[in-house]
Amino acid sequence: MLGLMQDWPLLCHRIIEHAATIHGTQEVVTRSVEGPIHRTNYRQIRDRALKVSQALERDGIKFGDRVATIAWNTWRHLEAWYGIMGIGAICHTVNPRLFPDQIGWIVNHAQDRMVLVDLTFLPVLEQLAAKLPSVERYIVLTDKAHMPETRLKNAVAYEDWIGAVDGDFAWKTFDENTAAAMCYTSGTTGDPKGVLYSHRSNVIHALLANSRDALGTSASDTMLPVVPLFHANSWGIAFSAPSMGTKLVMPGPKLDGASVYELLDTEKVTYTAGVPTVWLMLLNHMATHRLTLPHLKMVVCGGSAMPRSMIKAFLDIGVEVRHAWGMTEMSPLGTLAALKPPFTDLKGEQRLDILQTQGFPPYGVQMKITDDAGKTLPWDGKTFGRLKVSGPAISKAYYRVDTDILDQDGYFDTGDVATIDKDGYMRITDRSKDVIKSGGEWISSIDLENLAVGHPAVAEAAVIGIHHPKWDERPLLIVQLKPGQSASREDILRYMEGKIAKWWMPDDVAFVEGIPHTATGKILKTALRDQFKTYNFPTAAA
Amino acid sequence: MLGLMQDWPLLCHRIIEHAATIHGTQEVVTRSVEGPIHRTNYRQIRDRALKVSQALERDGIKFGDRVATIAWNTWRHLEAWYGIMGIGAICHTVNPRLFPDQIGWIVNHAQDRMVLVDLTFLPVLEQLAAKLPSVERYIVLTDKAHMPETRLKNAVAYEDWIGAVDGDFAWKTFDENTAAAMCYTSGTTGDPKGVLYSHRSNVIHALLANSRDALGTSASDTMLPVVPLFHANSWGIAFSAPSMGTKLVMPGPKLDGASVYELLDTEKVTYTAGVPTVWLMLLNHMATHRLTLPHLKMVVCGGSAMPRSMIKAFLDIGVEVRHAWGMTEMSPLGTLAALKPPFTDLKGEQRLDILQTQGFPPYGVQMKITDDAGKTLPWDGKTFGRLKVSGPAISKAYYRVDTDILDQDGYFDTGDVATIDKDGYMRITDRSKDVIKSGGEWISSIDLENLAVGHPAVAEAAVIGIHHPKWDERPLLIVQLKPGQSASREDILRYMEGKIAKWWMPDDVAFVEGIPHTATGKILKTALRDQFKTYNFPTAAA
Repeated sequence: MLGLMQDWPLLCHRIIEHAATIHGTQEVVTRSVEGPIHRTNYRQIRDRALKVSQALERDGIKFGDRVATIAWNTWRHLEAWYGIMGIGAICHTVNPRLFPDQIGWIVNHAQDRMVLVDLTFLPVLEQLAAKLPSVERYIVLTDKAHMPETRLKNAVAYEDWIGAVDGDFAWKTFDENTAAAMCYTSGTTGDPKGVLYSHRSNVIHALLANSRDALGTSASDTMLPVVPLFHANSWGIAFSAPSMGTKLVMPGPKLDGASVYELLDTEKVTYTAGVPTVWLMLLNHMATHRLTLPHLKMVVCGGSAMPRSMIKAFLDIGVEVRHAWGMTEMSPLGTLAALKPPFTDLKGEQRLDILQTQGFPPYGVQMKITDDAGKTLPWDGKTFGRLKVSGPAISKAYYRVDTDILDQDGYFDTGDVATIDKDGYMRITDRSKDVIKSGGEWISSIDLENLAVGHPAVAEAAVIGIHHPKWDERPLLIVQLKPGQSASREDILRYMEGKIAKWWMPDDVAFVEGIPHTATGKILKTALRDQFKTYNFPTAAA
Repeated sequence: MLGLMQDWPLLCHRIIEHAATIHGTQEVVTRSVEGPIHRTNYRQIRDRALKVSQALERDGIKFGDRVATIAWNTWRHLEAWYGIMGIGAICHTVNPRLFPDQIGWIVNHAQDRMVLVDLTFLPVLEQLAAKLPSVERYIVLTDKAHMPETRLKNAVAYEDWIGAVDGDFAWKTFDENTAAAMCYTSGTTGDPKGVLYSHRSNVIHALLANSRDALGTSASDTMLPVVPLFHANSWGIAFSAPSMGTKLVMPGPKLDGASVYELLDTEKVTYTAGVPTVWLMLLNHMATHRLTLPHLKMVVCGGSAMPRSMIKAFLDIGVEVRHAWGMTEMSPLGTLAALKPPFTDLKGEQRLDILQTQGFPPYGVQMKITDDAGKTLPWDGKTFGRLKVSGPAISKAYYRVDTDILDQDGYFDTGDVATIDKDGYMRITDRSKDVIKSGGEWISSIDLENLAVGHPAVAEAAVIGIHHPKWDERPLLIVQLKPGQSASREDILRYMEGKIAKWWMPDDVAFVEGIPHTATGKILKTALRDQFKTYNFPTAAA
């Protein structure tokens, strides 16, 4: 028997419509790409988003078409975002930090028909445009006064483009499972993979994000998403903040410590979210100039692990820290490290121990850890296994890729290796492709790297598994020394001894001039594996 | 084009599964019907709910069957709740405060196959049982030691019933639009009407309730729902609290000031929710005994309008107040009066002005006000009209009633008359069937009643519309004087004069010995209309 409740599809544009209707005068403040601070509100954003919808339709964009944005966090990006989704087209946020060839590959794979682009990224696009046959028109996110000469096909300034329509337009209504947005993940191996969000998944994710132990902002809060819209919907904030009527402060192109601080301070921001690199710059700027942020209540930190010292630095200035873990394929929130019973009253180092975990999931994210054969492992805080997840805002497939990516129970393999304790707190141990499989047991490459960089002469360390005739794999520690410093193989191994289980000890140490990185700053282990593919352990000779 | 996200249905039992998995040791504390305080946790509740599912299946209960509960807020009620829904049966919470005949009518209309009943309500059911042919078995929510002799068909003590199965059982998975729960509204006119919630609507409602400006509890909060499970899922708390891992304190049968205070105090409750009557008893108890509640952060108040003096009394003891409005047909949350910009810094009377409104809706509740012809009226805070609502957790029809209850845009008429201001705050003015339609304009019966009871001799006042040859309707004020007090028609009208628009003044005053009430304490205006159906205004003689 079916329930007798209304058939009311969960549609993304109903979020901005709600914000405009109930929180219409709530501000959205942006440091514009052109320079000045710009102020608007949810009512105006809704009105202009409807003009985007109307202009798209006038230009022949249809339900299901892909429209790309290559842009910073600004009010125009937000308008375009809702305008594209509001006619059932798909908002494809392209990461401008990728190598130009990757951007080209992605736009071609998505078959984007139109690109909305910030002034910053015009030069890159002009270089690429000849190789982007699907793109029929470029909209430059600026006004007539700032519009440069450009050879881009049918280029128009955004303000002229939406100025040419009257805004007499109504949102479309359709199935909530309709695709709404698209974001490619840039793995360290293989081609980028397109994650295709639905209206339903984005709305449900926003509702999860609004709960107190996730992002949990209210209509009287102010949120500054440093994390960009092109990183999985700015961790969902582009949906969650308007759904609550939370004031938004958009940082535009300037993400340095001084610029972020200025906005946090002058706009009395209460919540902010971003990666550790940003917070390091902010904390350094604040320490140098002896600054405070009395209005700031919480820093949400994700993207990569937050150093313990950084958590402590924020607590010391009276700011709560929420460590988060997720993936583009998870919309992206997976777990958040809120304090819950029995840990709420912990102080000092014990409190940091909990805050430094990846946290626990909200309702709507189910987790399990398994061994390589798919057998579920216990939640004892010690056993580590492949982390797999299931939920309404988690991918079941990639765009135009036929491979089935779920296991027999419908779980997605995150590629991470983790422990989960009895209270549901998850801790990432390694990436599953990096973990070293030695005699049927797993060794965490990350733990070894973290330990090795503690040696005073070591600038950076990477650990990879090398084939071993007896143990299958054994760890090789690759070290880049600090300039002018020296240390021997034995020095470093002696430093590590006793700090880890004996069978975790690297079988050898290799010294290199430089450790290779990806575009987003992660260690490029594929290149290291390539570099050391003919390497043999001295211990393996026998 | 459809998105590529997982097909993960929103199912109610996944809430208790999440609570058990992530917040398994979080407590659920109950003042039991038998007397003592009982302590359990979410893991045990999930385990026992699975036993309920298993026992129901063993007894032949199938997908879509109705299973009634007539019970207080206790851990056993919560287990039964999730156990019934977990096999796709429908949990029908019956309001034990209804007249026995109404209870009988409702059970027969729902065709309940089984009834789970608290010891308190055994006598009523024994009286009714002969007239309930659909009921095959009665489960008494107690253990062997407390099980009384009873003539009820196939009666068994709950603990014996679930003790007979081993708990080796898995939740069922099915379409999220499947009916999950059922609650009858007891109108003042006509037969009760059955609201049929779906799994989807209950889960979405829980997620809305979890946002900061709604209920917004966290895993480190403790919630005491005084509002019963049989009042629209205890305003959704039976779903929202477990979904967040919030500690639950269940008051069982004792809702007097002293008993509620004791639980709030000893269990360090941070959030509580209930009707004004309960808070009046609590505040009186606290004032008499000079008590405080230092842990209590928020009182959510709904069901009927919260008096201004009560809001102030809570603020004075340092407790935040959230005035809420909703309906059984809305799952039930419609609006909540959180403070938002530009009102966050208001103090004193101006702050009370906002806190006393019915509030603004969360995303997922759309409102409009219309005239009788369905024309949309402006949100100016003055114009009042019929309040209509739309959303994923709002009814589109009643159980076994063929009438279409939505307007052409899919909105449900709440039966309330309200204003909405430009900031989205809604204020209930009247019930639409009670508003007086005079010369094309509307007069609020409630405003007149509130004014009249200010006269020192008036115990209670009711206003009804009486046919008038010229104005269509004009207000008749019906007054019950305080014992031993006297006042004339002219005394009362003179008291009201100047405090309202002249054309709002009642055309006459009628004195009665007693004003009739419904089972839930509301003025029974149908009876008054009946009593005064032959009445003619002196002014209408010409």
